[in-house]
Amino acid sequence: MKPAMPALLSPIVAGCWRLDQWGWTPQERLRWIEQCVELGVTSFDHADIYGGYTVEALFGEALALAPQLRNRLQLVSKCGIQLVSPQRPQHRVKAYDSSRAHIVASVEHSLKTLRTDHLDLLLLHRPDPLLDADEVAEAFEHLRAAGKVKRFGVSNYSPEQFELLASRTSLVTNQVECSLLHLVPLHDGSFDQMQRLRLSPMIWSPLAGGRIFSGNGETEQRVRSALEAVAREHGCSAATVAHAWLLRLPCRPHPIVGSRRIEAMREAVAALSLRLDAPTWHALWSASTGHPVP
Amino acid sequence: MKPAMPALLSPIVAGCWRLDQWGWTPQERLRWIEQCVELGVTSFDHADIYGGYTVEALFGEALALAPQLRNRLQLVSKCGIQLVSPQRPQHRVKAYDSSRAHIVASVEHSLKTLRTDHLDLLLLHRPDPLLDADEVAEAFEHLRAAGKVKRFGVSNYSPEQFELLASRTSLVTNQVECSLLHLVPLHDGSFDQMQRLRLSPMIWSPLAGGRIFSGNGETEQRVRSALEAVAREHGCSAATVAHAWLLRLPCRPHPIVGSRRIEAMREAVAALSLRLDAPTWHALWSASTGHPVP
Amino acid sequence: MKPAMPALLSPIVAGCWRLDQWGWTPQERLRWIEQCVELGVTSFDHADIYGGYTVEALFGEALALAPQLRNRLQLVSKCGIQLVSPQRPQHRVKAYDSSRAHIVASVEHSLKTLRTDHLDLLLLHRPDPLLDADEVAEAFEHLRAAGKVKRFGVSNYSPEQFELLASRTSLVTNQVECSLLHLVPLHDGSFDQMQRLRLSPMIWSPLAGGRIFSGNGETEQRVRSALEAVAREHGCSAATVAHAWLLRLPCRPHPIVGSRRIEAMREAVAALSLRLDAPTWHALWSASTGHPVP
Repeated sequence: MKPAMPALLSPIVAGCWRLDQWGWTPQERLRWIEQCVELGVTSFDHADIYGGYTVEALFGEALALAPQLRNRLQLVSKCGIQLVSPQRPQHRVKAYDSSRAHIVASVEHSLKTLRTDHLDLLLLHRPDPLLDADEVAEAFEHLRAAGKVKRFGVSNYSPEQFELLASRTSLVTNQVECSLLHLVPLHDGSFDQMQRLRLSPMIWSPLAGGRIFSGNGETEQRVRSALEAVAREHGCSAATVAHAWLLRLPCRPHPIVGSRRIEAMREAVAALSLRLDAPTWHALWSASTGHPVP
Repeated sequence: MKPAMPALLSPIVAGCWRLDQWGWTPQERLRWIEQCVELGVTSFDHADIYGGYTVEALFGEALALAPQLRNRLQLVSKCGIQLVSPQRPQHRVKAYDSSRAHIVASVEHSLKTLRTDHLDLLLLHRPDPLLDADEVAEAFEHLRAAGKVKRFGVSNYSPEQFELLASRTSLVTNQVECSLLHLVPLHDGSFDQMQRLRLSPMIWSPLAGGRIFSGNGETEQRVRSALEAVAREHGCSAATVAHAWLLRLPCRPHPIVGSRRIEAMREAVAALSLRLDAPTWHALWSASTGHPVP
Repeated sequence: MKPAMPALLSPIVAGCWRLDQWGWTPQERLRWIEQCVELGVTSFDHADIYGGYTVEALFGEALALAPQLRNRLQLVSKCGIQLVSPQRPQHRVKAYDSSRAHIVASVEHSLKTLRTDHLDLLLLHRPDPLLDADEVAEAFEHLRAAGKVKRFGVSNYSPEQFELLASRTSLVTNQVECSLLHLVPLHDGSFDQMQRLRLSPMIWSPLAGGRIFSGNGETEQRVRSALEAVAREHGCSAATVAHAWLLRLPCRPHPIVGSRRIEAMREAVAALSLRLDAPTWHALWSASTGHPVP
């Protein structure tokens, strides 16, 4: 096996999506960041719009309490969506904006609120039919040259959409939804493309937003039961098995874990030491689809 | 932004699909052509089969009244479909023919009936499972070398179908259906591919064959109402807004307007001066899909 | 038309899928092989799992009666699926295995049971989400260097899956299902990709597992009736027409005929001399879809 590209992100990424809902003081937020780092979870996933444009500032406020921590972190943010929000009264409708002006302005705002001088990775949040790939490439080049963003990627892109933008600028990842309850990127070419290009996707909702453990549908129950059986065998939690199932993929995905509970982080990190064998992996796939592999 | 390829077609293209249904004298047809040209609509979209194999002759008859006009026009035609028609009693079934013999014979017939010595652009009308890409490339090369066709393209092709033929011969466009009531090429990779290759698609049925204004379904009513609101704001017609919505796409599409009414042409041309902002564009997209952008 | 790659397989391939169900002695099996060869059907399609891991041995037993025949045959086998089977009591669940160890071990077993020192072609049986393309490429290179497998391919792959593995190792075919009752690869990019790469697909179930002749659904009846009309016109069997319909495709597919009846082989071979014209081909397509071509 040829060497993968030098790791940009920690194997497990901490998701800050819901950071505004945890009701924490800056000190509590800092403690969470530090505990993540102690577990080896050094990459933090943001977006300009998380928490209705409030999460980056909450994170930055915590980071300001321990500025020396910044060099041990990788900060990921996104732009390109314009929410209707009290924070942005000028927005009349949820829309995308892929213009150079918006990308640069959004990054400047992220840097300011995160209280950092650079992002390690910037993603375009959603595919935008109005995206002009040359204009985006120019915006990225400008941000790279200014030292404000180190690497670039996209999120929720189809293979053709990725191919378009990658034809104009260097992309390092596509952040997509995947879990035992959402198998789409295994079959729509997304992960085939990532592996072909020797890139690693980032994975959002690796536990289907908790539905793997709380859902009452037939599929959820089948998957849960199968996960629990494997977990018993290995003496670990079902969540660890669910993460191990993703980590077994040859495109080497980085699951994003967005939980206030450090135990949830620990369960994800434990998956890095659990290599599922192929029959177990396919049995879990079959629990999800409801039939054996073809 | 890098320069686009030199424009082959006028930004708005006149569609001749229904020319046989307008009940016009050759002089009236000539007047329509001249009025289009006065508006800057200098490209005319034909196909061998339009009007049951009659439209090209009707156009050629008008052109013969003012032969000096030819140099100011770009004539586009298509081939590859064989209709069951009184004009072709030997056809037993609607079928495709992508053979070199048929392509060359169809072009010869188009040149004769259009009364011109060359086509500016020839398109294969539909993807044909029997298409032999090498044979088509040979036919195109023969026609190009003979000066009978300047450029080549396809119509209604998927990205993989386009990629096949483009691997053997140079293609400049894919003519596809798109409108606020038909969003498919925005999401199936077609427009991503065009932009990646720096090509411009041609658009048929940009107003969904009039359904945008006459349709009574929920979607049609939502779209119409949204178009009218934007039109009021800009002091233009709803049709102008519908065309401006297409012209905003970064693949720089050429809408084909197939109307006997010069006013309809004028409304399309007016769209060239109306640049919709991104929120307006996405609001119209949302009116079509019935939900905000994801 | 440029020359195709030198033929690796006979135009019609004999399928051994059901060889274990024919209740034959080794001598009868040898006679079947010899009769196929006399018809020019010199390629035989196997898989490790056919007959619940028994078919290769039945074939090898027959071949051992006339070892000099080997040089006139092309032997194709597959690996990558692990069946739950009395022959493999260690398998708990139907799963895929694309590891180097499994590929090499499976080939060694195929060589031993087929009683040959090499396979002419090895296919990965199904797309496997766990496939590591670099590891597979290494396994293939090892088998090629050892003289154990001459060429490599895949089966049931999507275009993106094919593109991934083809980016690491040389593939010569994709074996897919296609028939007048299964048109998928004509429209999903599979055959476009094969033609673009100047490769020939292999076709499984070219008569839809017999359903073309035994099925009672509307589609089956329409297709059968259309095939019979063409057959009467050409003085051949409907099966010959069904094969001729496939052989007309420009990607030059190799249908696999898996029948104990030599007459079935003869009907397929007869299709090599029957070139359907385009209208007839599209009429048969229309009989399958229930509507004229678009």
